[in-house]
Amino acid sequence: MNKKPVTGMRDILPAEMEIRTYLLDLIRKTYKSFGYTEIETPVVESIENLQGKQGGENEKLIFKIMKRGEKFDLQNAKEENDLADSGLRYDLTMPLARFYAMHQQELPKPFKALQIGPVFRAERPQKGRFREFYQCDIDVFGDASNLCETELILAMMTVLKKIGFKNVVIRVNDRKLLRALAEKTGLSEDLYEDVFIALDKMDKIGEEGVTAELQKLGMEEDGAKAFMNVFRTVEIPESIQEIFDLVNAANESGYEVVFDPTLVRGMGYYTGPIFEVAVPEFGSSVGGGGRYDEMVGRFAGQPTPACGFSIGFERIVGILMENGLSIPDATEKTAFLLERGLSADKRAAAFKEAAGLRSEGRQVLVANMIKNKKFQKEQLALEGYAEIREFYENPIG
Amino acid sequence: MNKKPVTGMRDILPAEMEIRTYLLDLIRKTYKSFGYTEIETPVVESIENLQGKQGGENEKLIFKIMKRGEKFDLQNAKEENDLADSGLRYDLTMPLARFYAMHQQELPKPFKALQIGPVFRAERPQKGRFREFYQCDIDVFGDASNLCETELILAMMTVLKKIGFKNVVIRVNDRKLLRALAEKTGLSEDLYEDVFIALDKMDKIGEEGVTAELQKLGMEEDGAKAFMNVFRTVEIPESIQEIFDLVNAANESGYEVVFDPTLVRGMGYYTGPIFEVAVPEFGSSVGGGGRYDEMVGRFAGQPTPACGFSIGFERIVGILMENGLSIPDATEKTAFLLERGLSADKRAAAFKEAAGLRSEGRQVLVANMIKNKKFQKEQLALEGYAEIREFYENPIG
Repeated sequence: MNKKPVTGMRDILPAEMEIRTYLLDLIRKTYKSFGYTEIETPVVESIENLQGKQGGENEKLIFKIMKRGEKFDLQNAKEENDLADSGLRYDLTMPLARFYAMHQQELPKPFKALQIGPVFRAERPQKGRFREFYQCDIDVFGDASNLCETELILAMMTVLKKIGFKNVVIRVNDRKLLRALAEKTGLSEDLYEDVFIALDKMDKIGEEGVTAELQKLGMEEDGAKAFMNVFRTVEIPESIQEIFDLVNAANESGYEVVFDPTLVRGMGYYTGPIFEVAVPEFGSSVGGGGRYDEMVGRFAGQPTPACGFSIGFERIVGILMENGLSIPDATEKTAFLLERGLSADKRAAAFKEAAGLRSEGRQVLVANMIKNKKFQKEQLALEGYAEIREFYENPIG
Repeated sequence: MNKKPVTGMRDILPAEMEIRTYLLDLIRKTYKSFGYTEIETPVVESIENLQGKQGGENEKLIFKIMKRGEKFDLQNAKEENDLADSGLRYDLTMPLARFYAMHQQELPKPFKALQIGPVFRAERPQKGRFREFYQCDIDVFGDASNLCETELILAMMTVLKKIGFKNVVIRVNDRKLLRALAEKTGLSEDLYEDVFIALDKMDKIGEEGVTAELQKLGMEEDGAKAFMNVFRTVEIPESIQEIFDLVNAANESGYEVVFDPTLVRGMGYYTGPIFEVAVPEFGSSVGGGGRYDEMVGRFAGQPTPACGFSIGFERIVGILMENGLSIPDATEKTAFLLERGLSADKRAAAFKEAAGLRSEGRQVLVANMIKNKKFQKEQLALEGYAEIREFYENPIG
């Protein structure tokens, strides 16, 4: 028997689990207060859907599930896909598009969805990156107006504020603006995505590095430099200004929304406003999203505007763990320690008393006393049992 | 693109999801009040562990996951298992045993675990049986005393009472008693499990049917009949009476615990008291469990007493859905409908007002008015929006 979890996946111990449950509960309740309704899809999806070219690089990282019974035909299998009929989802967006296509007659219009669950990517194992991790998404299907973006940003701000982040910066751009600017490169349209990928590296390789990459794509040095200069002077488009005005009117978080014309976001499916959220004191991104009006239609069979936001759940759990979050209004914990050989009557009385305290909202652990009682009490204190009571057959004094 | 979920799995729509979330929250909070601590393990486990003979029939139903990269060697593969390195878990018990073996130094002793999550079985698709379903288990590792059984039963009773079940019957037996009785058959020890399997069919095939099955195993007719008669007169063993006394002393649910010498429970790994829970008006079992002192040691490397209970989460969701559960203290819901073309100022004011109501604990949906406003309002009412407010540029009157 193998004691370890499979490579790249991990067990969640009680201390982290408490933070995860607290955080999921906070996220769920806050998003629901904005009218997002929770749904769930299987963690397994058909291999055709997973390889349907919606997932970009993630499609190379699929955990494939074998056909079963007679359908598993090893003799005649020529390639991997002859033996697989399904796989583990790599995100929650593709399954949501499928879900919407299947159930749209039964769903409100527009449909404001909340999804929470594990996703799987067979990435090369490395520190801090896991092959199973939770995603936590809100999406709106069937509304082309910027009410979607406004609410996604406000909902996300409300969650981050409740978690306790003091400074949060939301950078916003528009894929349409990026495309309009890309036209100025003079490069052919099929290179635009490469231009965006180069731009996306700005914070890693700097303006000089991006200029060099643009030259590799075929631009002259002068042209590349001029193109990069445009990003200094380009003005905020109306599409984004409108969202900013609405967000700022209702924004009680004190968080900042800023226009960043170099923001790209990885996935190719975005079609309009895109945004990314950072907590500067903790360095990395804690979420992002945008509008993707073309993708859902491929499942739904008719044009379906869509817009979504994915909060960096695992990253936030990491930040909270590192900073020793104490969960607000955690239940009061009492432990009852029963002497070995305590009579049935007295044990029963202890159980009864514990039941009473629980019905008042307390957490009560009933345990047998071990020989090393001092150690046992120390351990219980570490687990948060502030009150420890001992039950003896013949109480002293 | 395929709109349907994969065969045998299903999507969860908003109405059911609300019940599931409510129920999981209730179960989680109640179990925690008894001192069970929540943990989580990956849904993927190594193929060696999944096929380690702990899972009985379930091991035939594993969804296997393909090796990736160079390890996937189709050319030299002779059988299925040459191409698989892992699979989806079929229950939460085997992963918990692995988890305990791996982390026991970091865990309280005894370890009272709570686990909630999906499990997977490639069963033949049929009505009401799904290939992905949630399990929700509590287990105690490292305590051989009947404090475990007592608390498992009390915790489970408390949950079922809070859900609202009026009549619940908990049948209890002891595997040790079953073995002692099986000795009286005169059959060889390796046939005992078959005797139990026959007994387990009592409610389906009746005493006559069981007697016939015992004869097939090699008993004379008279012997088989005499053996069946024993179950009428056998007295409650002390192991169970003690648990009953303790449970009844603290039991405020009004539920009944009864001794049933014919109770078997499916899994072969049980070693002591076993129990099964039924809600008579809804026919089927809503949970079961028992002591399994031999299994965890195979992972942990040292004898580790264990005892657990699994609540029939999906069955209970089904009962609540069929009986139109209205979730207690559901949040009050208000919808704001904004006239198309409403000025930025007035939209901003609506967003601001919504934020205020949400901070008071309300759920507020902000939506654009559609042409068929009457239909929109009807739909919102169906979703539970009791109050609907309309925002116009030029309010009438």
